Amino acid sequence: MLRTKEQYRQDLFNMKPNIYIGGKKVGRDDPRLAPGINVLDITFDLAQDPACQGLATATSTLTGQPINRWAHLPQNPHDLLQKQKLIRVGARRAGGCIQRCMGQDAIVALAVCTKEMDEANGTDYHQRFLDYLKVYHEKDLDGCCAQTDAKGDRLKRPSEQKNPDAYVHVVEEREDGIVVSGVKMSITQAAYADEIFVIPTRALMEEDRDFAVAFAVPGDAEGVRLITRPVWLREKDKAGAAPFARFGVSDSVVILDNVFIPRERVFMCGEWQFGRRMALLFADSHRFSYCGCKPAVSDILCGASCLAAEANNIAKVAHIREKLSSFASSAELAFAAGVAAAVYGEKTSAGVFFPNEIYANVGRRLTGELIYHEYNLLTEIAGGISVTMPFGEDFEEGDNVDDLMKFIVRNPNLDPDVSLKIWKFIEEIGASAMSAWYKIAGVHGGGSPIMETIALNLGYDYEDKKRLARYLAGIDETLDDSALVGLEPHPIQEE
Amino acid sequence: MLRTKEQYRQDLFNMKPNIYIGGKKVGRDDPRLAPGINVLDITFDLAQDPACQGLATATSTLTGQPINRWAHLPQNPHDLLQKQKLIRVGARRAGGCIQRCMGQDAIVALAVCTKEMDEANGTDYHQRFLDYLKVYHEKDLDGCCAQTDAKGDRLKRPSEQKNPDAYVHVVEEREDGIVVSGVKMSITQAAYADEIFVIPTRALMEEDRDFAVAFAVPGDAEGVRLITRPVWLREKDKAGAAPFARFGVSDSVVILDNVFIPRERVFMCGEWQFGRRMALLFADSHRFSYCGCKPAVSDILCGASCLAAEANNIAKVAHIREKLSSFASSAELAFAAGVAAAVYGEKTSAGVFFPNEIYANVGRRLTGELIYHEYNLLTEIAGGISVTMPFGEDFEEGDNVDDLMKFIVRNPNLDPDVSLKIWKFIEEIGASAMSAWYKIAGVHGGGSPIMETIALNLGYDYEDKKRLARYLAGIDETLDDSALVGLEPHPIQEE
Amino acid sequence: MLRTKEQYRQDLFNMKPNIYIGGKKVGRDDPRLAPGINVLDITFDLAQDPACQGLATATSTLTGQPINRWAHLPQNPHDLLQKQKLIRVGARRAGGCIQRCMGQDAIVALAVCTKEMDEANGTDYHQRFLDYLKVYHEKDLDGCCAQTDAKGDRLKRPSEQKNPDAYVHVVEEREDGIVVSGVKMSITQAAYADEIFVIPTRALMEEDRDFAVAFAVPGDAEGVRLITRPVWLREKDKAGAAPFARFGVSDSVVILDNVFIPRERVFMCGEWQFGRRMALLFADSHRFSYCGCKPAVSDILCGASCLAAEANNIAKVAHIREKLSSFASSAELAFAAGVAAAVYGEKTSAGVFFPNEIYANVGRRLTGELIYHEYNLLTEIAGGISVTMPFGEDFEEGDNVDDLMKFIVRNPNLDPDVSLKIWKFIEEIGASAMSAWYKIAGVHGGGSPIMETIALNLGYDYEDKKRLARYLAGIDETLDDSALVGLEPHPIQEE
Amino acid sequence: MLRTKEQYRQDLFNMKPNIYIGGKKVGRDDPRLAPGINVLDITFDLAQDPACQGLATATSTLTGQPINRWAHLPQNPHDLLQKQKLIRVGARRAGGCIQRCMGQDAIVALAVCTKEMDEANGTDYHQRFLDYLKVYHEKDLDGCCAQTDAKGDRLKRPSEQKNPDAYVHVVEEREDGIVVSGVKMSITQAAYADEIFVIPTRALMEEDRDFAVAFAVPGDAEGVRLITRPVWLREKDKAGAAPFARFGVSDSVVILDNVFIPRERVFMCGEWQFGRRMALLFADSHRFSYCGCKPAVSDILCGASCLAAEANNIAKVAHIREKLSSFASSAELAFAAGVAAAVYGEKTSAGVFFPNEIYANVGRRLTGELIYHEYNLLTEIAGGISVTMPFGEDFEEGDNVDDLMKFIVRNPNLDPDVSLKIWKFIEEIGASAMSAWYKIAGVHGGGSPIMETIALNLGYDYEDKKRLARYLAGIDETLDDSALVGLEPHPIQEE
Repeated sequence: MLRTKEQYRQDLFNMKPNIYIGGKKVGRDDPRLAPGINVLDITFDLAQDPACQGLATATSTLTGQPINRWAHLPQNPHDLLQKQKLIRVGARRAGGCIQRCMGQDAIVALAVCTKEMDEANGTDYHQRFLDYLKVYHEKDLDGCCAQTDAKGDRLKRPSEQKNPDAYVHVVEEREDGIVVSGVKMSITQAAYADEIFVIPTRALMEEDRDFAVAFAVPGDAEGVRLITRPVWLREKDKAGAAPFARFGVSDSVVILDNVFIPRERVFMCGEWQFGRRMALLFADSHRFSYCGCKPAVSDILCGASCLAAEANNIAKVAHIREKLSSFASSAELAFAAGVAAAVYGEKTSAGVFFPNEIYANVGRRLTGELIYHEYNLLTEIAGGISVTMPFGEDFEEGDNVDDLMKFIVRNPNLDPDVSLKIWKFIEEIGASAMSAWYKIAGVHGGGSPIMETIALNLGYDYEDKKRLARYLAGIDETLDDSALVGLEPHPIQEE
Repeated sequence: MLRTKEQYRQDLFNMKPNIYIGGKKVGRDDPRLAPGINVLDITFDLAQDPACQGLATATSTLTGQPINRWAHLPQNPHDLLQKQKLIRVGARRAGGCIQRCMGQDAIVALAVCTKEMDEANGTDYHQRFLDYLKVYHEKDLDGCCAQTDAKGDRLKRPSEQKNPDAYVHVVEEREDGIVVSGVKMSITQAAYADEIFVIPTRALMEEDRDFAVAFAVPGDAEGVRLITRPVWLREKDKAGAAPFARFGVSDSVVILDNVFIPRERVFMCGEWQFGRRMALLFADSHRFSYCGCKPAVSDILCGASCLAAEANNIAKVAHIREKLSSFASSAELAFAAGVAAAVYGEKTSAGVFFPNEIYANVGRRLTGELIYHEYNLLTEIAGGISVTMPFGEDFEEGDNVDDLMKFIVRNPNLDPDVSLKIWKFIEEIGASAMSAWYKIAGVHGGGSPIMETIALNLGYDYEDKKRLARYLAGIDETLDDSALVGLEPHPIQEE
Repeated sequence: MLRTKEQYRQDLFNMKPNIYIGGKKVGRDDPRLAPGINVLDITFDLAQDPACQGLATATSTLTGQPINRWAHLPQNPHDLLQKQKLIRVGARRAGGCIQRCMGQDAIVALAVCTKEMDEANGTDYHQRFLDYLKVYHEKDLDGCCAQTDAKGDRLKRPSEQKNPDAYVHVVEEREDGIVVSGVKMSITQAAYADEIFVIPTRALMEEDRDFAVAFAVPGDAEGVRLITRPVWLREKDKAGAAPFARFGVSDSVVILDNVFIPRERVFMCGEWQFGRRMALLFADSHRFSYCGCKPAVSDILCGASCLAAEANNIAKVAHIREKLSSFASSAELAFAAGVAAAVYGEKTSAGVFFPNEIYANVGRRLTGELIYHEYNLLTEIAGGISVTMPFGEDFEEGDNVDDLMKFIVRNPNLDPDVSLKIWKFIEEIGASAMSAWYKIAGVHGGGSPIMETIALNLGYDYEDKKRLARYLAGIDETLDDSALVGLEPHPIQEE
Repeated sequence: MLRTKEQYRQDLFNMKPNIYIGGKKVGRDDPRLAPGINVLDITFDLAQDPACQGLATATSTLTGQPINRWAHLPQNPHDLLQKQKLIRVGARRAGGCIQRCMGQDAIVALAVCTKEMDEANGTDYHQRFLDYLKVYHEKDLDGCCAQTDAKGDRLKRPSEQKNPDAYVHVVEEREDGIVVSGVKMSITQAAYADEIFVIPTRALMEEDRDFAVAFAVPGDAEGVRLITRPVWLREKDKAGAAPFARFGVSDSVVILDNVFIPRERVFMCGEWQFGRRMALLFADSHRFSYCGCKPAVSDILCGASCLAAEANNIAKVAHIREKLSSFASSAELAFAAGVAAAVYGEKTSAGVFFPNEIYANVGRRLTGELIYHEYNLLTEIAGGISVTMPFGEDFEEGDNVDDLMKFIVRNPNLDPDVSLKIWKFIEEIGASAMSAWYKIAGVHGGGSPIMETIALNLGYDYEDKKRLARYLAGIDETLDDSALVGLEPHPIQEE
């Protein structure tokens, strides 16, 4: 089944109210949530679009039916390339974060890790997860991922925290399920998701056993509260607004207050040895997703910079052109890292095809290092007008409309209203509260540069490089470079 | 006379309403202007502060009386060092831009350039300006500087513009003064200044003669309209807010619609040969001012980062400490550039001591190149919480107050309410609309990096470097390095 | 046929002497050329290595026989991936530039461009080139590429130069061939290549028709003179030296002084409209090659840095580990760009599979931007010892051997002679004349960053980004993103 | 007394031979030492130059006689500014490192620290040092500074080393003096200095008491051996060479093998508490020196880049001009840091005026961060010719002279021999072994960037920034910024 956006909204608005904004409980139809829901709409529209069949959709490995690709378990490099492309297409249309990949990355992590836990311990998590996922496919659900715990004191492990709710944990194990409590934070999209996937955020030790827990919970389950922070543009500007101004995002603090999770929704419970693995599977899959979405952000900033250059009539100036070409590098190097991650990925024991972690990490890290610089480029090209231009109403009413509509034109080939739309867009993209969200998410979403550095230092084959240097330095007589010689791409072909 | 802030506000609120915000005409007591006026208050308070005598005040060269240093004509390097320090002190207290230096820089440019015009042409602008300035001193006025014209088509000179109002120009010369029209933009502080100094923004050619005009006009003069864009934090947060949240800024599009300027307020009229000189005098003086204010911004970002590191309990981590030290470099290199500009400045024919332009430009350019990076550092240290934390009200009312007050604590040595204040401050400084203003003004205010590059390429002694290389390469037999050998600092001593 | 390195050397040393070093004519067995020849040896050894069948070899599309991959015309993405991997493997073993890719890139450019010229003009260059290449395959020849002309005055086109030899050009057309003259410069490997491929270096206009010329000429043909600059380590260190010290490179100024080129070796003659195309085909193919070789250089610098860190006993220090991870990014982002260039490449009309130019250019540009930084990292990790350590002989003879062999040990787990080998290697790699060659070639080889910027500005789809921005800004009602939606990877599979 | 360079050389060549190069003992007249001695000549010539009186000379505070400024104890900011300028003048003439500042910095550190030790412990080191220095002044001696110990295992303290000679230490205390042993490394200029100042390299603990030792020893004292590594250009090029090619440098491993130091030359012996202080005094003074010499290096690279741009006829191209302006920033920001260090320095108890450590460190760090980038800029502007141009002899003899002299001209306004000199200079400065020395010394000389980071983290007033942030965040009610308000420059005036 492929839900329409109308069906998605209907289901959403039927959920039990457990969202809080600014101290008040609100329904999921609160207008401040609408900008984020508008983004989700795109993901449902794409799946209905005939031009996007096979891109926005895939064939479920569980039902054999068409499903939204955001619910699909990738089977081969082509699936990963399609996922990457879908994210880029969607993120472009959303003017930035498409918000739905975290759920997909959670599904991947759960599918792979449940299998590995079963192989190690003889449990039956994997089949249980597939049973759950089958229904998810059949109902075309949308899940978000709640990974980041509140964490409390960063110098202490989960079991050492004074406040036990700093990390989500098992409070009670029952015959038919478990009871969990704790706080997750910075959970994007939670306020308008059907389901919340909860997974561990870090490596765990034996004493952290209670914190080794993963499950799926409906967004409005008993005991779940979401304190939600919407980010969106000024309300005034919304009527008749440009597409960019219609979109926004909400992040939530998710409080789990003695929530009962039935057995069939529990996918890890006590397997502390797999805490790091689950956390990294999600993180690495999500960093691969960034190799699709950050190119979209660069595309948008590039396009905005091109428009600003045109509106300033400086599009031919040498240093402007050099700056524009920087966006090509950031977009396409990140995208290329995703391509290499797909081509040199690996088939896991669960059958899921998983992106190469090194390429995912170098790609994601690059984007995190460059995001502020990209906004800096936009600012250099656009000039100061984005923070000093009069409010939109000044161009519509009052004594100064004529003067301002003349004022706004800098390129005689552009009409005043096109000029105005360009500069409003530059303001919204470069100088609004959304702009701060994009910069900060650009650094920290999916792991900040320092996290990718750590992942690289764990996974990169430094020994190979040392062997090479020892050989060239004359310390070792021979060089073993068989790993590189034997490196083979996975065949890419649509199936 | 040294006005108190109360006197300043009283004068301000008595001005004729000619401010427009969002399509409506408003008084200068509109609450949206208050955050900017709060900043100006600091400049009046400092001059009243006994600890700041001789720093925030100076002795007028015209009246012999104490005046606010922001109205003072620097006479020697010590005056420049005091100005630089005063800007740093004030900007720190304002949480950023102190807004009053543009007026001071305009005074400097007018004092120097009027003298040079008189020397070249036998005019009497300089005495006229001093007469004006004497009253300015006596009344302790506050002026802003309107330099940046609307500019229209950037490929055309002022006289070639289709829209003549793209640059301010003389419409009519009368016996008793001139009539001017045109549009200036991005004029900081204009909405709450007593006076507006209008000066040219660029080099001019003979056919641009009408655009070679400089004068002072009261902020509410007949024919002056200001379309003002205030930038400030969310109103809700203001009650009992932290000092940082009380401050803001307003920029205006200044429309001069057939404004009559009496002769005694006209300081340039037709001297197109001095267009570039006046523009550069203001720009270079203002870039020197940045060597005082940008260190303050770095101080604030450094302090915020230190607090964030403490609140995250990661203050001892090596890479955090390395990042913190970056703020020391950006603050102190810019400050040092100002010091060198003072020590190696020059006495102009007007008696004004003017900062060395090379040092002012390398200092300013550095800060423009680093500003986004400095916010990036704050983001890396603070983490994602600044864009995802619940609104302030969630911590004050509703079902989640207890949970959230536990949630907000990450360092067990910090009380919940201190933790909350820290994270609110990080949000305000790093993820609010003000934040965009500071980044973009940090790049473009006082000239963007490309403008400083142009200024450096004009002023830097590349010939000296070529001579040196030709000598070392064996092309020239001897080396003339007498300019460097003879370089002497100006004596610094308080007078 | 696959020549052994012995056969290659035998053929080489039988060539007519036309090499000049330091004012003297020398044979190809001059010891100063040996370090470069040692590098070429690797390319012949690889093709003999059973482990590298299918990697270092390929099946000729012309003879159906196994050939050295450096002579192969890539047919599909897998061929490009193998080429990229082969270059990385070879460059690692050579301690840097493997030198043989220029010839391969020239073959690719000639194969593609001759076909396109024939299609446009009905000429028969393509078959002529294939006939030539068949023999090249049969004899397993090694060709270098002479693209960069002396150029003379960079403000003038070829036909405007005062010195006509500033660009290679046709002096006379005869029935049986052409006579050419002119000077090419910076031609790597020419002094020990069998053949020299000569192609245009830039776009040409009609009046530059004589400069539109491409051909193959034996390295010792009548009228060809090579003034060669070898770069290698100090001779003293060569006996028993480490592998790294055995390798070097030579670049030549190639003077063509009325050289007769028989018709069957002429592959362009007067087709000025294809000057740019031929130049770019070579450049883009070569930039793709860099996506294989620069990762090798990063591997070597990474390994050297790891050894230095170990020898300094600081391998666990946080900032050292962060620095090491930078090499992972530079190596693997460049490699990933090559992978994407292969996956999203295109089949040309000549049947050659050509890498995507955008990915090749962003990959190459990245490496050119980072090369100095990578050496900087090595220096930061290694410390100052690499430029201040005593000469090798001091560790072998005289009064200080015992003291120095104690001195050289900084990590108690490393033997003195291992420590010495490490620091000698660091010196050779980071502080020798070779080091300058690698940095400068790293910036300029295959086109400097500014050339890749120009290529990107020509080829990147900025219009797509503008359309996107116009849609998001509300200027255009719909978004055409069909190019992205329809983007499909080429199947990768070994054939 | 002011020695001439002839007198300096005469004294030098009379010294006992204890220099080793390449396993052989050599005299100080070994031609491989000449390039370094040529640099020292400049320092003697400057003092004789009438134009440089008061710059290259000063009045001894001990004898009242004129002395070479490199032996002078700075008394006020003007002295520091003169020192900075002298270093820039000298370094420019030497084409880089003037080599003599380390001795000056050692004198400063010894003067200040001996006084402070005396104040703490009632010793009489200070007078003893002044007595020594008086003779040093009278004889116009040249001393180098041996600070960096061999260090051995960097994870262990001096007293924990397996090899006790890893750090210089006291072997025996006698009535009339001490006996010392150990190894110092990377000691620039030692092979042609009259005296060697030995001081500790790091903070010490009580058990490291034997390593707390400072003294002066003649360069050829009994038991002193120097294993010297000269860096210079190829010998062939020296005849009639350009000034740049005449200069070079030598660094030495200094072995002290049971050397007796008479009491009157011992300036610290056992005061482990002052190990860090002495080390930092030297380091900070030396970092101030860098604020003079690194601007000279930037001047040279800027000049070389200007010449290369001219020789390439691209001096007007926009991106070239932007790159050139980068040298202005690196040179003048570092110089400005020195100026601020002088203006905000402090009078020590010894009467020596000491530069502000924060400014010295941010200045030095900047230069260390930028040095590779500056060479990168030169390479970008010059192109690849610097590593591929034929050897000098090819332009002088043999079959290709005419062709090459045409080849070398790219700007028709430059004669062939000027073009050749320019490109040879570019090669020598950018692609020779000297070039590696300058890059690596640029990073590590006087402390690598990480050392300046550590120094900044120790000395920078982060508490002030935290107080500021706490005030702005509303945590503290008031702000104590009295330190900044009270900051006063020292008067600058020649005395």
